[in-house]
Amino acid sequence: MAKKVVLAYSGGLDTSAIVPWLRETKGCEVVCYVADVGQGADELAGVEEKAKASGASACYVDDLRDTFVDEVIWPTLKSGALYEGTYPLGTSMARPVIARGQVELARRVGADGLCHGCTGKGNDQVRFEVAFAALAPEMEVIAPWREWSFTGREELIAYCKSKGVPVTSTAEKIYSRDRNLWHISHEGGPIEDIGKPPPDDAWMLTREVRDTPNEPSRVRISFRAGVPVAIDGEPLGGVALIDRLNTLAGEHGVGRIDIVENRVVGMKSRGLYETPGGTVLYEAIRGLEDITLEYRSRKLKDQLAIEFAELVYAGKWWIPARAAIQAAVETLAQDVTGDVTVELFKGRVVTTARSSPSSMYAESVASFDMAEGYDQADANGFLRLFALPERIRASATRPADEALA
Amino acid sequence: MAKKVVLAYSGGLDTSAIVPWLRETKGCEVVCYVADVGQGADELAGVEEKAKASGASACYVDDLRDTFVDEVIWPTLKSGALYEGTYPLGTSMARPVIARGQVELARRVGADGLCHGCTGKGNDQVRFEVAFAALAPEMEVIAPWREWSFTGREELIAYCKSKGVPVTSTAEKIYSRDRNLWHISHEGGPIEDIGKPPPDDAWMLTREVRDTPNEPSRVRISFRAGVPVAIDGEPLGGVALIDRLNTLAGEHGVGRIDIVENRVVGMKSRGLYETPGGTVLYEAIRGLEDITLEYRSRKLKDQLAIEFAELVYAGKWWIPARAAIQAAVETLAQDVTGDVTVELFKGRVVTTARSSPSSMYAESVASFDMAEGYDQADANGFLRLFALPERIRASATRPADEALA
Amino acid sequence: MAKKVVLAYSGGLDTSAIVPWLRETKGCEVVCYVADVGQGADELAGVEEKAKASGASACYVDDLRDTFVDEVIWPTLKSGALYEGTYPLGTSMARPVIARGQVELARRVGADGLCHGCTGKGNDQVRFEVAFAALAPEMEVIAPWREWSFTGREELIAYCKSKGVPVTSTAEKIYSRDRNLWHISHEGGPIEDIGKPPPDDAWMLTREVRDTPNEPSRVRISFRAGVPVAIDGEPLGGVALIDRLNTLAGEHGVGRIDIVENRVVGMKSRGLYETPGGTVLYEAIRGLEDITLEYRSRKLKDQLAIEFAELVYAGKWWIPARAAIQAAVETLAQDVTGDVTVELFKGRVVTTARSSPSSMYAESVASFDMAEGYDQADANGFLRLFALPERIRASATRPADEALA
Amino acid sequence: MAKKVVLAYSGGLDTSAIVPWLRETKGCEVVCYVADVGQGADELAGVEEKAKASGASACYVDDLRDTFVDEVIWPTLKSGALYEGTYPLGTSMARPVIARGQVELARRVGADGLCHGCTGKGNDQVRFEVAFAALAPEMEVIAPWREWSFTGREELIAYCKSKGVPVTSTAEKIYSRDRNLWHISHEGGPIEDIGKPPPDDAWMLTREVRDTPNEPSRVRISFRAGVPVAIDGEPLGGVALIDRLNTLAGEHGVGRIDIVENRVVGMKSRGLYETPGGTVLYEAIRGLEDITLEYRSRKLKDQLAIEFAELVYAGKWWIPARAAIQAAVETLAQDVTGDVTVELFKGRVVTTARSSPSSMYAESVASFDMAEGYDQADANGFLRLFALPERIRASATRPADEALA
Repeated sequence: MAKKVVLAYSGGLDTSAIVPWLRETKGCEVVCYVADVGQGADELAGVEEKAKASGASACYVDDLRDTFVDEVIWPTLKSGALYEGTYPLGTSMARPVIARGQVELARRVGADGLCHGCTGKGNDQVRFEVAFAALAPEMEVIAPWREWSFTGREELIAYCKSKGVPVTSTAEKIYSRDRNLWHISHEGGPIEDIGKPPPDDAWMLTREVRDTPNEPSRVRISFRAGVPVAIDGEPLGGVALIDRLNTLAGEHGVGRIDIVENRVVGMKSRGLYETPGGTVLYEAIRGLEDITLEYRSRKLKDQLAIEFAELVYAGKWWIPARAAIQAAVETLAQDVTGDVTVELFKGRVVTTARSSPSSMYAESVASFDMAEGYDQADANGFLRLFALPERIRASATRPADEALA
Repeated sequence: MAKKVVLAYSGGLDTSAIVPWLRETKGCEVVCYVADVGQGADELAGVEEKAKASGASACYVDDLRDTFVDEVIWPTLKSGALYEGTYPLGTSMARPVIARGQVELARRVGADGLCHGCTGKGNDQVRFEVAFAALAPEMEVIAPWREWSFTGREELIAYCKSKGVPVTSTAEKIYSRDRNLWHISHEGGPIEDIGKPPPDDAWMLTREVRDTPNEPSRVRISFRAGVPVAIDGEPLGGVALIDRLNTLAGEHGVGRIDIVENRVVGMKSRGLYETPGGTVLYEAIRGLEDITLEYRSRKLKDQLAIEFAELVYAGKWWIPARAAIQAAVETLAQDVTGDVTVELFKGRVVTTARSSPSSMYAESVASFDMAEGYDQADANGFLRLFALPERIRASATRPADEALA
Repeated sequence: MAKKVVLAYSGGLDTSAIVPWLRETKGCEVVCYVADVGQGADELAGVEEKAKASGASACYVDDLRDTFVDEVIWPTLKSGALYEGTYPLGTSMARPVIARGQVELARRVGADGLCHGCTGKGNDQVRFEVAFAALAPEMEVIAPWREWSFTGREELIAYCKSKGVPVTSTAEKIYSRDRNLWHISHEGGPIEDIGKPPPDDAWMLTREVRDTPNEPSRVRISFRAGVPVAIDGEPLGGVALIDRLNTLAGEHGVGRIDIVENRVVGMKSRGLYETPGGTVLYEAIRGLEDITLEYRSRKLKDQLAIEFAELVYAGKWWIPARAAIQAAVETLAQDVTGDVTVELFKGRVVTTARSSPSSMYAESVASFDMAEGYDQADANGFLRLFALPERIRASATRPADEALA
Repeated sequence: MAKKVVLAYSGGLDTSAIVPWLRETKGCEVVCYVADVGQGADELAGVEEKAKASGASACYVDDLRDTFVDEVIWPTLKSGALYEGTYPLGTSMARPVIARGQVELARRVGADGLCHGCTGKGNDQVRFEVAFAALAPEMEVIAPWREWSFTGREELIAYCKSKGVPVTSTAEKIYSRDRNLWHISHEGGPIEDIGKPPPDDAWMLTREVRDTPNEPSRVRISFRAGVPVAIDGEPLGGVALIDRLNTLAGEHGVGRIDIVENRVVGMKSRGLYETPGGTVLYEAIRGLEDITLEYRSRKLKDQLAIEFAELVYAGKWWIPARAAIQAAVETLAQDVTGDVTVELFKGRVVTTARSSPSSMYAESVASFDMAEGYDQADANGFLRLFALPERIRASATRPADEALA
């Protein structure tokens, strides 16, 4: 039984209730850990005071934004991973670095337990606990939502009040949200009715298309070895670059996704995601890869992206398979250097220009006019061998007529 | 040396020149084969007369539209294949059925040679000749563009005139295009400058976003086992259904793609593609799959889509590997029955509602409220085993602190 | 709480104890289900009497051997699936058909519960329960080993005696075994020491290499569409064919495997497997595929084999992804018709001759002598295009010298 | 037209004839490049003299054995790559390093052309020329076998004699062979009859099973991060280690392969391969991986092995995709440290003992007895969620009875 527990604390209702619950039920000291992964000043404001007012012995706020970007977002961007081909993994990506920060704090303060406020139906419990198993297998893990008997917000509010924990939340919160530098997610409430379009009031970072500017914006993004490093020629660190693109893309309504996805725990759920800057970057890097990666690189990357997305989504970050795919992806990204101009307009982002010192696109080769770099007659031999298996098989196995059936 | 050659004939400048060239150079009889794959009445008008006026002994027009849809487009749609994750394979898909029709005609008229008008740098020569190798390995294949000495349109026009072949083409045709029921492609000319946005005058089937309606359209598409069968409740055959969606989506500017792709022959080229109806169908079927396919089906499909796209793009249709992937995909599609509503607006198409008799989405299970179908405590055991490899590895291989590095 | 439970019954100690335990603990009627999957007359002898003497209200013996072969073994053989590249899936393959038979019986006798005797650490509980979930989601599942407090054989024997259940087992059984037509597995006891070779007394179906004949045996196996149908020209049904090969291969010591594998539940375990006939068939079909499948078929099959093995091993038989891969594999197997001669000698089986009406091997093409079917000059063009990406990349991205680094 | 050509020279008949042919036909200076990749002293003896006697202006012998092992063999071993699941890539692996050495020499001596003696039907021309394209796209490539009119050995011998080139070869050489440190291959002659077993006189490095010792040998191999570093506790460099295992395994008849494979140029050919030491190392590393890699690592590796084998076989070594897969594989190999004991006997090699400081095998966890590390009750929750997709699908899509069909 843990004596000192580090709680991944957000200052919201759930983790506010967990502090007194842990102390009361487990009889342990509670240290709050707040990871700043870009959820915004609103969420962070006064969080230390709140934690202490809830009964925590201490509260540490840890700025992980650079780490988040450099260690997880950029590699994932380079991999092209989108869960089930669609979801840019915003929530998933943050969990491994948060969990690691939490474990590091636990070691520093001599804690022997780790706690999170995730429900028992979702993916986030998986991501936290898989990371804990990898990084601190010796520590006790406490998941109050799978243990206590509270079943809804009203009971939590009542419990908090009974314990003197200050609560600003109201019972009728509609959506369950998660926000960080990369995205915001929305689940629950009317979103769960898959027969209806997303409710208008759910979206937060992106405008409705009908409210976006009537003129497009163009932005030029520079990449170095797969990492975006400048906008319109101005060098920017990762956090600032994503922030800037979030604002710009949000204005143009870019980055909304509405999907029904397969959770790790085996059920389907509907999620709305806003990833404005991320959507721009996925488009831009693909545009640059088009001219810098050859076919086998492209195909390998697309295959690995499926696996990488699965691992990130499931929280399987701290395993060799993830590191291995990342090593492959980083290798391929070595050539992905250059500039891409994208146009943002009415909810869409499209590449309009690309250039690279390592471009494999050669106008003179591709052109329909004759060119010295390529002899059309070479295609004769190429085709004869490329189609040789077909020819041999057709000749060998059956009368040709039958092949038409 | 072939005595009688069947030429895949379009009525354009290239194939018009090929008729006299074949007769003159090869001394053979030329039979023209025109496959109607939905390229439109304009292209087909008067094609038989043109062929004969060019010196063909006969010209056959073959309506392959239903075949094209049923045998190639629907299976490819079900597979989710997009070449390099982007291109909906419009030109590629038509070639196998055209080549098969051409071979069938050759057999019928007792021909011993096959000819096409594709250049020596592109993909289409590959697709034709790979199909010929599979379906008629005994026939001679003639590819004039890899053999003759003409190097441009002006020379072809002059040659045609010298042979009394009627020519309406002009020397300054800018773009190279291919059109069928599924799409139109544009290459060449200013498109080849990848540092510039696509020229405005290239697009033909889709409106500029700024010229699209200011109100969205919603359309409900019904699928049966992965095949779209009705629009807004009205049952439609495949050709009519695609036609209808092409018009509607084109008005909303949906379906434009601008990519630099890797050709089979090893070089990169830039292509603009308009696939209005197809883009809508890819979005819609994915929306329906989201609620009908479980995770392993989804992942398998995404993996196979990469392979299927490669085969279709390379013209490797008539091989067992293609048939095998198709068999897998058709199996997965058995559950993909239901209705999807999509919204078309300002160049985008998004799913807004989905329903299916075989839906695996259960609001009661996914909801954050407690529900009888799922016991949150199950997650305890699940997580313990799901993370067991991490725990064992962390315990076994090294001090935990090192794992954080 | 189930009123009538169908138990997958073997007549061994565990399931013998389960009968009274179910009646006593759950207060339910117990019906025993014995699937004959080729475990042999010894195991089946007197099993009905034993079941009734243990307190079962009825016992049904179901001959599933043909089903097992036709529906599971042959498709898996055609797929080439080997778990982790090694294990021919003997135990795994039997479970889906046993579970289905059990469910069918439960429906027939009006039962509302299903029970198995697998431990809580192994794979078999997974395979049974995954099948139950797919085939009878409404039924209660009881897994006594995860519920009762017995911890070893001695306690089980004592319990049986106290309930008047006849027991012939002794407390010191060393190995845990599973046998069917395809294989026998051995786990537990000294096998668990991975620092030592397998104990000599573990093996049952195959001779020690030093005791095998000093002359090889050759056997010719005929396949039709991937299914073995005859031995040395004598047509045989699947069960008889496997039996015959088991005997022959066992004499030559063929088919032993000793591996440490990753269980579904996340831990590693060591298993010894004897699959004599199966090992011969895997070698033989591969020998035939070598001459009948082209490269893309071969590669696709090898990729799918990995996935198929995972699904079979995990008991995920009754899902669309399994059916989809099987459909692909059956398609590829259409060409796999012909004869293969293999030689069995000193623990090894190797292909020595192959022939097929659909062979793609053509001596005249492959020979180093010149032949009309292939013009060496074609290789010029082929190579120029096959290496074009290398040439373009080398020219474009950097000085050639650097490429050597 | 090249003025100075570097020829990959072996001293055999073909390259002996090429020297005067190049001088005569191309009017160029010829520099011979002999790469020592472990083909043995016999092949290398007197090679410089021979080259000069044939008319070469210079001959350089380059000891690439360490490079071959460290840069190509070890990474390929770590990847587990076997072409078409069988062939350990002996010839394929040597080509990239030979070609690079040849290019480096060409740069050093100021040559502008590269030449090899491979035929126009095989894989080796591909491997050389793909490497040349990547490393020296500016140089002219000459492939005499695709250019000259000689059609057989007799003509070559006559030509050599006419040019005063000393020839020891005889016209009736039966097999085409390639030997290096890793293997020897045999093709041609009676081997081409796939209806017959391999001729006894083909094999060179391995004994017939009937002539092998009647007592097994055991050998303990130590790996560090996937690289074999010691035998029976004695540290050995790569070349010496492989040499030692070649001898030992050859005596026990280990390492013979007889396959029909798909060449890059589209045809099938039969090859006999002897890879005695390599076969031992593939078995040993797999044995060690069994206890050090978790399931996802194992699966990823098996998937990547298929791709890596394709690239190596096709000579696509100098491309980013190869480097990327290698980076992944090297990452996974970090844990593959430990000792494996294998037994060599009668043509087989099997793992008999394994140990590793990073072993994930824990007897106490896997044992059937209860153990503190694993609570069997966890399997309840695990199974409920692991089978949840089955349960949901079965409930949702159809009456359960239908699922049994």
